[in-house]
Amino acid sequence: MRVLGIDPGLRNLGWGVIDVDGSRISHVANGICHSAGKELGARLLALHEGLSAVIAAYAPTSAAVEQTFVNKDAVATLKLGQARGIAMLVPAQAGLPIGEYAPNQIKKTVVGVGHAAKAQVDHMVRMQLPGCEIAGPDAADALAIAICHAHHARSAERIARRVVS
Amino acid sequence: MRVLGIDPGLRNLGWGVIDVDGSRISHVANGICHSAGKELGARLLALHEGLSAVIAAYAPTSAAVEQTFVNKDAVATLKLGQARGIAMLVPAQAGLPIGEYAPNQIKKTVVGVGHAAKAQVDHMVRMQLPGCEIAGPDAADALAIAICHAHHARSAERIARRVVS
Repeated sequence: MRVLGIDPGLRNLGWGVIDVDGSRISHVANGICHSAGKELGARLLALHEGLSAVIAAYAPTSAAVEQTFVNKDAVATLKLGQARGIAMLVPAQAGLPIGEYAPNQIKKTVVGVGHAAKAQVDHMVRMQLPGCEIAGPDAADALAIAICHAHHARSAERIARRVVS
Repeated sequence: MRVLGIDPGLRNLGWGVIDVDGSRISHVANGICHSAGKELGARLLALHEGLSAVIAAYAPTSAAVEQTFVNKDAVATLKLGQARGIAMLVPAQAGLPIGEYAPNQIKKTVVGVGHAAKAQVDHMVRMQLPGCEIAGPDAADALAIAICHAHHARSAERIARRVVS
């Protein structure tokens, strides 16, 4: 299984691809799709093209997207929502199954506690994907989302096997 | 000029197409793109395909999207944001210039007051586009957005002409 993790954001959309083979995971690639300028349509188009190129280049078999933290700032929530719409659309267009995970669930899976600091998540991602160069905090988050998905997919598989046998 | 107005929404995305010739406007088509089900990716994909088909069928030369009302419910704002991301992306992919208008601005242009009731907007849309059958309230809103865009584009043109002459 090859997992594409996506950390949605309008300015910086982080992505990370990992390979999952049983309990082994390995790094494939990671990066950030940027969008800037005043025209919202053009910015969303840039994110769509960037993320489509990532899927074309690395051919993931499933995707995982962070369930956006809904804060109290409605304008920020709306902006994030628009970027998240693209983050969900692109893998759906490629026919990939998409997992959604809450930030606390991701931290709990990767670090062991739900309220881990950003630096701790970054550290654990580097520990679990030794030797990989990370493009930035948003890319580290995206790799954490992919690791979270790999873990949950494995659990689901184990349960399925137990039911069958 | 042929204008595509879009009223973004995750469940019901209204659209309306009008032709603008100087100060004359006429109805071309209107409708609603629906999305239902649990899978957000599949829902956004349905909206993307529906709206792309509208652009392919009616070949608008510009688009106008409502600037979403940011209410106090963050979950609803996030949902709307995701749908609005698609509503902005599709015309951008078609290379159309996109106008954005606040709900009050749309009402003020179409009805004359910024705090008009939905029924008033619907009535004025039918008055200005006589004989057209409207698919539903979201489609009426989308036609109002298109009329608002036509009006503002005309004003901009008049100003430009005055500067030139």
